[in-house]
Parts: sequence; structure tokens; C-alpha cells
Amino acid sequence: MLEENERIDDLELKNLKIIQNTKGFCFGMDSILLSDFAKKIKKNSIIVDLGTGTGILPILLSAKTESKKIYGIEIQEKVANMAKRSVKLNKLQDIIEIINIDIKNIFSLMEKNSIDVIVTNPPYKKKETGGVNDNEYKLISRHEITAELVDFIRISSELLKSNGEIYMVHRPERLADIITLMRKYKLEPKRIKYVYSNKKLNAKLVLIKAVKCAKPYLEVEQPLIIYNDDRTYTRQILEIYNK
Amino acid sequence: MLEENERIDDLELKNLKIIQNTKGFCFGMDSILLSDFAKKIKKNSIIVDLGTGTGILPILLSAKTESKKIYGIEIQEKVANMAKRSVKLNKLQDIIEIINIDIKNIFSLMEKNSIDVIVTNPPYKKKETGGVNDNEYKLISRHEITAELVDFIRISSELLKSNGEIYMVHRPERLADIITLMRKYKLEPKRIKYVYSNKKLNAKLVLIKAVKCAKPYLEVEQPLIIYNDDRTYTRQILEIYNK
Repeated sequence: MLEENERIDDLELKNLKIIQNTKGFCFGMDSILLSDFAKKIKKNSIIVDLGTGTGILPILLSAKTESKKIYGIEIQEKVANMAKRSVKLNKLQDIIEIINIDIKNIFSLMEKNSIDVIVTNPPYKKKETGGVNDNEYKLISRHEITAELVDFIRISSELLKSNGEIYMVHRPERLADIITLMRKYKLEPKRIKYVYSNKKLNAKLVLIKAVKCAKPYLEVEQPLIIYNDDRTYTRQILEIYNK
Repeated sequence: MLEENERIDDLELKNLKIIQNTKGFCFGMDSILLSDFAKKIKKNSIIVDLGTGTGILPILLSAKTESKKIYGIEIQEKVANMAKRSVKLNKLQDIIEIINIDIKNIFSLMEKNSIDVIVTNPPYKKKETGGVNDNEYKLISRHEITAELVDFIRISSELLKSNGEIYMVHRPERLADIITLMRKYKLEPKRIKYVYSNKKLNAKLVLIKAVKCAKPYLEVEQPLIIYNDDRTYTRQILEIYNK
């Protein structure tokens, strides 16, 4: 079940586990927060996770929603393989399917206008920026090497049914890019939530829900603060982690 | 000095006063918050306030910045007249000039690409929405009757020098409109701050700074919360009010 540098971690949610590669690729708090932000997804939805990595989002959403099917799309064969083993480990093969394909080729497998919900935690950083010390796996998952923000948004829009929903986590510094691209591809931003490390710093993450072909009206939700002044987790975070 | 239904209020800042019409038009907390958000405007700037109303923003900014000249543009003659009297009352005629003109005709008076800073608290609501009980003054200042968001943004962009700054306060539900229009007119959003009544409600205001022809990189600043759980003002608000 495990390959070199891999370990099994307990997700502390309905006995779910996940395989991670300690040298290559682990999921972050951003995926946990996105799964919480998206937890009111309608029953029997068909969900696609664009750039699933370890498979963390499909595994969490299988527990937090009553979805019919969740597809996790991952371009990196080794990473997709690890995600597939996590799905088996949790006996979730009926609900979750990990597909090793470039999101740009997704329409060889899926129909346009056929999906209810997209979730995505795309690479945050522009191609040119930093990352020289990262290994190949981290580089591709964190930087816009194989696909850029515009690809994630355009492909999401094409996959979604009218009134289908996309849930994305990203960095606030890209917000203007995200909103203008979403508008361009008929994904209307409807809910935004910012995540702050503490009350004194700028936001470090933005969670955004958009709906295909919806009317404009945006709600900016209460801020999500991670740490109290004494560096303990806030009640908001403990609730998300079921503590 | 005073006309019917008018009264003089103390701004509790450097002895400044303002005339307000109790039946027609009073400034709100949004103007106070915008003047604080914009207080780092460079010395000797030429500022234009599009839709100045009572003249609150020019009067506050005359005290909070070391600007060379502040023009307050107001379409409603009666309101502009009241603002002019407030300027005289504070002996600020050398710094502040209130101009009674439609912002759409501003280029009969001002050169394009000539202004350092725009501040604006435009009407928040779309033309069609509500307001049937408002009198004419409230209607024009709160609803997009005489000018719409696109006019405020386009005219701001045309007035500003390259690298000139715009500071706007608006409602979060219009954020996607604001950002896409700013991008369209080469105003790059650089700082955003959300204002919340308390920690549990959605944001009620958004403060946004954009810079003409700047590179994209947006900072979402720490949230501004107005009330503590016990309904007293937060320290953040007391500091803005110099208490």
C-alpha cells in the first residue's frame, strides 16, 4: 500500500485516512477550509475536483456531503496513484474516482455542461515566481506550470451545467484576476470568505463560490481567523476540525 | 449661515464643523471610514471627491492629509451650496473648492490625466431598487439616478494621472462589478478592507484603493469590526474617531 517516503495520516473525521508523501506532497489547511466552505453542496451532486493532489478534497467531501460521484483530476501520475490508494484504503471506490489526466484534456472523458459542482485548489503562484528549491511534484502543484488560473476557470465553466457551482481557494492577491476571469466565463461570484492567520495580518487565503449564469449579488462572509492572540486555535477553526 | 432644517455638527477633529440637513442629507460612518482608509495620501496631492454631498470627505481630508487642493464635485445645487457654507465655516476656502456640476461634465473644468487622487462615496444602489420613500436629495445621493458606477470609475480613470490613486467605499455585493470595471478602465485594485457590524454578520461595506496603470497585486487588509459583542464600539473604531 505504501511507497517510499509515504505515510498514512488520520483525518479525524469518520475514521477517514489519507496517504501522504512526506518529501513530495502533503495537503494543507486550505483544503480543509475549502471542504468546509463547500459543505452545503446539494444531495446527489456530481462533483469534479480539478487538481486533486492527494485526493484530500474528494475524501473529505464524501464525508461532508451526500454526493453521488466525486471525480478527482490529477495530472501527475505518481500523485494520482497515491490518491487512488487513499480512496481504496477508505473503501470509497464507489463514490470517488481519481483520473490521471491533464485538465486541458478533460473533455475527452467528460461532457460539457454536465457537472453540478467543481471544487478546486489550483496552483497559487505564477510560473515565473520562486520555487527553485521545490521538487517536481511541489512545483507543479504550487505553480502555474501545466495549467494557469484562466485554464482552471474556463474549463470549470465549460464543465458546469447552468446554475452549477464552483468553490475555489486561492490567494487574495489574485482576487482581481479571479473575479475578472470568472465574469468573463459566466461564473458569477456569490460568496467570498477571507482567512486570516490572526486579527492583525492581511488575509492569507480567499474562499470563493461562484454560480454559472447567475445574477450578480455577492456576499462577503464573516472573516475566518485561525489563531487567537495567544496562538491557540480559534473556536471557528476548532469547529471546522470537529474538536 | 443656516437654512431650514439645517444644523451645525462638531466633527470632533481639530475643531472642524459641518452643516447637515436633518431632513435631507447627512453623512454616514462610511465617509469617516473612507477618510481614514485614505489618510496616507501623499503631501501636496490634488484630490477630487466625486459626489461630495455635505463636503464631509474634503473637510476630513484637509485635516488628515497635507494636500494642496481638494475639489468636491456635487450635482445637487442645494447640497453643493450647503457644502460651500461648511467650507467657509471652517475657513478652508484656500484648500477646498466645492463645484456644483454633474461629474459627466467635469472635463469642461478639469484636464484629463491631471489629478493625483480621487475619493468617492458613490450611490450604492441600482436605479430600480427601492427608495420610493426617499426625498429627491436622498434618492440622488443613494441611487444611481444621475450617474452609475461605470461613470464614477470611467471618469476617475480619465481624471487620474498614471499612478494616480482612487479610494472608494461601496457595498460588498457590488464588488465583482467594481473590480471588473476598475480593470476595464486600467485602475488596478491594490488594497481592500471590509467593514463588518460585528463578527457574526456579512460585511456591510468595502473600502477599495486602486492605482491607475499599476501591476496586479492585491492586499486584503485585516477586517474592520464596528461593534464588540456587548454593542460598544471596538477599539479599531474608537481609534478612527480619535477617542
